[in-house]
Amino acid sequence: MKSDIEIAQAAVMKPIVEVAKQIGLQEDELESYGKYKAKINLSVWNRLKDKPNGNLILVTAINPTPAGEGKTTVTVGLGQALSKMGKKAMIAVREPSLGPCFGVKGGAAGGGYAQCVPMEDINLHFTGDFHAITSAHSLLAAMLDNSIQQGNLLNIDPRQVVFRRVVDMNDRALRKIIIGLGGTKEGIPRENGYDITVASEVMAILCLASDLMDLKARFGKIVVAYTYDGKPVTAHDLEAEGAMALLMKDAIKPNLVQTLENTPVFVHGGPFANIAHGCNSIMATKLALKLADYVVTEAGFGADLGAEKFFDLKCRFAGFKPGAVVVVATVRALKMNGGLAKDQLGAEDLAALERGVVNLEKHIENMGKFGVPAVVAINRFPTDTDAELEFIRKRCQELGAEVALCEVFTKGGEGGGELAEKVLDLLDSKKSNFKVLYELDLSIEAKIEKIAKEIYGADGVNFDKAAQLSMKKYTEMGYGNMPICMAKTQYSLTDDQTRLGRPVGFTITVREVRLSAGAGFLVAITGAIMTMPGLPKRPAAMRMDIDADGIITGLF
Amino acid sequence: MKSDIEIAQAAVMKPIVEVAKQIGLQEDELESYGKYKAKINLSVWNRLKDKPNGNLILVTAINPTPAGEGKTTVTVGLGQALSKMGKKAMIAVREPSLGPCFGVKGGAAGGGYAQCVPMEDINLHFTGDFHAITSAHSLLAAMLDNSIQQGNLLNIDPRQVVFRRVVDMNDRALRKIIIGLGGTKEGIPRENGYDITVASEVMAILCLASDLMDLKARFGKIVVAYTYDGKPVTAHDLEAEGAMALLMKDAIKPNLVQTLENTPVFVHGGPFANIAHGCNSIMATKLALKLADYVVTEAGFGADLGAEKFFDLKCRFAGFKPGAVVVVATVRALKMNGGLAKDQLGAEDLAALERGVVNLEKHIENMGKFGVPAVVAINRFPTDTDAELEFIRKRCQELGAEVALCEVFTKGGEGGGELAEKVLDLLDSKKSNFKVLYELDLSIEAKIEKIAKEIYGADGVNFDKAAQLSMKKYTEMGYGNMPICMAKTQYSLTDDQTRLGRPVGFTITVREVRLSAGAGFLVAITGAIMTMPGLPKRPAAMRMDIDADGIITGLF
Repeated sequence: MKSDIEIAQAAVMKPIVEVAKQIGLQEDELESYGKYKAKINLSVWNRLKDKPNGNLILVTAINPTPAGEGKTTVTVGLGQALSKMGKKAMIAVREPSLGPCFGVKGGAAGGGYAQCVPMEDINLHFTGDFHAITSAHSLLAAMLDNSIQQGNLLNIDPRQVVFRRVVDMNDRALRKIIIGLGGTKEGIPRENGYDITVASEVMAILCLASDLMDLKARFGKIVVAYTYDGKPVTAHDLEAEGAMALLMKDAIKPNLVQTLENTPVFVHGGPFANIAHGCNSIMATKLALKLADYVVTEAGFGADLGAEKFFDLKCRFAGFKPGAVVVVATVRALKMNGGLAKDQLGAEDLAALERGVVNLEKHIENMGKFGVPAVVAINRFPTDTDAELEFIRKRCQELGAEVALCEVFTKGGEGGGELAEKVLDLLDSKKSNFKVLYELDLSIEAKIEKIAKEIYGADGVNFDKAAQLSMKKYTEMGYGNMPICMAKTQYSLTDDQTRLGRPVGFTITVREVRLSAGAGFLVAITGAIMTMPGLPKRPAAMRMDIDADGIITGLF
Repeated sequence: MKSDIEIAQAAVMKPIVEVAKQIGLQEDELESYGKYKAKINLSVWNRLKDKPNGNLILVTAINPTPAGEGKTTVTVGLGQALSKMGKKAMIAVREPSLGPCFGVKGGAAGGGYAQCVPMEDINLHFTGDFHAITSAHSLLAAMLDNSIQQGNLLNIDPRQVVFRRVVDMNDRALRKIIIGLGGTKEGIPRENGYDITVASEVMAILCLASDLMDLKARFGKIVVAYTYDGKPVTAHDLEAEGAMALLMKDAIKPNLVQTLENTPVFVHGGPFANIAHGCNSIMATKLALKLADYVVTEAGFGADLGAEKFFDLKCRFAGFKPGAVVVVATVRALKMNGGLAKDQLGAEDLAALERGVVNLEKHIENMGKFGVPAVVAINRFPTDTDAELEFIRKRCQELGAEVALCEVFTKGGEGGGELAEKVLDLLDSKKSNFKVLYELDLSIEAKIEKIAKEIYGADGVNFDKAAQLSMKKYTEMGYGNMPICMAKTQYSLTDDQTRLGRPVGFTITVREVRLSAGAGFLVAITGAIMTMPGLPKRPAAMRMDIDADGIITGLF
């Protein structure tokens, strides 16, 4: 089979104006970026806002393993399959982050015959949204240090600056730095550090804002530091939110592209799902719901992180009512959850599968707690045996969940027919009774405990001293009624990335709670979360190239 | 009179496809970025390369003062005026830097009725070129530190890393930093610092490259560090140039926009003229010369920096033969050169003008050394008196230079009629005998001395010990035959920014010589050159805003 980039380069794309017409968008509502990408003017919302919403379908997954589950691939493939069946379908996914593309991962716009195109553009600068986020974030950071340098009228304590800097690159040497060296004209020396752009609160805000004015207001609320007497200093105090919003005037507009089979796709926003809420933008999703009868979207990492935050943060904020959820699993990843190493996955091993399938079972149970009917999608690999597939099907049916085999990687939309049928059945036959997991008026501790016990299966939560102090402080500051954004390893239901399957008898340790006042949530940090990745020994960048005709190689 | 942004917002723009047609570009040779911006496919070159070149007209200026000379405004206005006369004219200018826009300056795409539009886009993210440069630069920096961290196979001495990091923001606290703190997993602690993106060697390379393959080859030659035994380590040694070129695949394409009067403009590239060579890209200029009969371009800061480097670097590398040069001056700025303060410029003062006009005279003389006929453009202000204007006209005529009054700021192209006529006369009547100032086979010292003596009027050059050692090293490394990129204050012909007018009896001190092996020049650093500006006490960002309809205020 061809590589992802070879398949993408061979795609027969329609002009984006035609793709837009399929879903009733008019040419003057588009801002084209080349022939195959466009931003959608926000004015479209006024024309469409009174239309009924289409069905919202979430694609989530088991805990990720190095074996790969193909969540984005299934998301794209399901959208292609629905389109092939004549349904008016759209896909709404996140934008890939430029930095990691040069590390291990390569591209992130689906795979095989279920990809978003133009794949190279989507994986590189795309329409510049992440660059705008980096710029807005960098402006606020520069204005903050400038305010300290120029007389410090806001009385900012340089030891209590909480706003870090960002760059969209895997650059571990910037995790912990000292800035402002060199003398009286070069700023105030202080500790600082860089996160990757996707971890920026500016990114979280872009994805949660309802419109441009909401975006600006949220920027103003970002708490960047505390004064010497402990009072919060915001971006509004620095008079930065107007210029920040101005920098984001185009980034706020959803990006329209297409799949290999010309299904319309919004690719917009993309916060980290381990440190932020990990979903594409509310604005793209709400617009898609007006444009299509079926909207397929995804949430980052496993359902314990991505789906929980999709429901408790994104759907809560936006008032979305998801109609069905697809839980993606692979035989290979379940066997890894059952204790096998990556090089042992080729042979049939029902015992390992039995040990590992409990991870899937837990996620299926969890979806029930949100009242949303679930179907399991097995993303099929050539090495899967009939006995293994049958084993999973049986176990899922015992939990009341349908199972569909999915071959979109090798066959495109045609390989997603069974999954699409089952999703449509589910939407017809089972009414979704979507509800959030917790109410906002619980204490911060109680909200975190509820997520840990009910979603992760923990016995309880230990709060470190620092976390206790922060929770007390935020409650006093009036932020106690915000929802929680859990920051946890994606590899395990626990906060220990080595414990796979469905662990029992464990507690979660919260070492720190951070305030994202602009995004509107509190981040509970439970492990050694990485907000700035590093490059591997031989970065993917080393294999990338471009020739005289502009043909790209090594980006996959 | 309306503000720049009000005038720009009221502009009646043509669709960029129509603007392109005016100069014979076909629709499929464009990549539109919205309706009013487009990138030009490099394949156009093959179609046009055998056409004869149009006339190349350089706009330069006296040494800049806080009174403002309006060099970009005159450049744009002259292009508009030529178009109005029915000539097939184009403009080729630099892209504004995002960072300084939020500091003191505001926008930088011309002024009054001589502007490039869409002004807001050009001043903000535009088509993402500078973000691509930041990304490519950041990737190389990350790969460099990663190589040291992951076993240091290239034997890089962390004390001898010469490649800094960049961000497109005025952020003084990043000038001098320590990175890699935090332990064995967080990189190697070392000194580092940030420059603004326009000062990046990646930017200089973009502006000097002849095509994509040349761009990639030049990236590979960037010297980023030295080994413990003193050998240079390049981007090619880090296997970074392919991925860097891939990140620049769109940035390399010239951007087409228009003036307020629909004259076609290439806005492409924009290195600092005090630390780099300060001209728009060779690719944009060479393409414009095939598309138009008259191409008006500019070089940064005063003629001692911008024009000298335009001739000795850009024209030398590209083989351009400029036909005429316009030296922009204002009565106000000449009076400041004559010793007046900014608040004393309102009243007629022929004595101050007489003391200051010597600055203009020196620049006119200098243009003669390059063999290019010059015309002086007086960018007229309402406070200028007839006696003052007549005084300048007389003095210039004594030097054999024509003078034209220019009122493009208040009248657009119509206000540039006299200037356009005189430029056309010059092109018809006086043959340009363009020659570079120095030959490459002179020693590094001799080249620097020639520029200092002949262009600045210095008695000689003092080389600090560090500069002497570097020149010796670069000569041994085989870089002795590269041209020189002078880094000097833009405010004076000397290296002391307080000495205005036309100083005599001074020497230039070169404290450091840096190698830009990818760009292909040696940088001679003569003063306290700033490669990362700071924000003022009340940054321009504080006055910027955007409303619910997307209308921007405060960007001027």
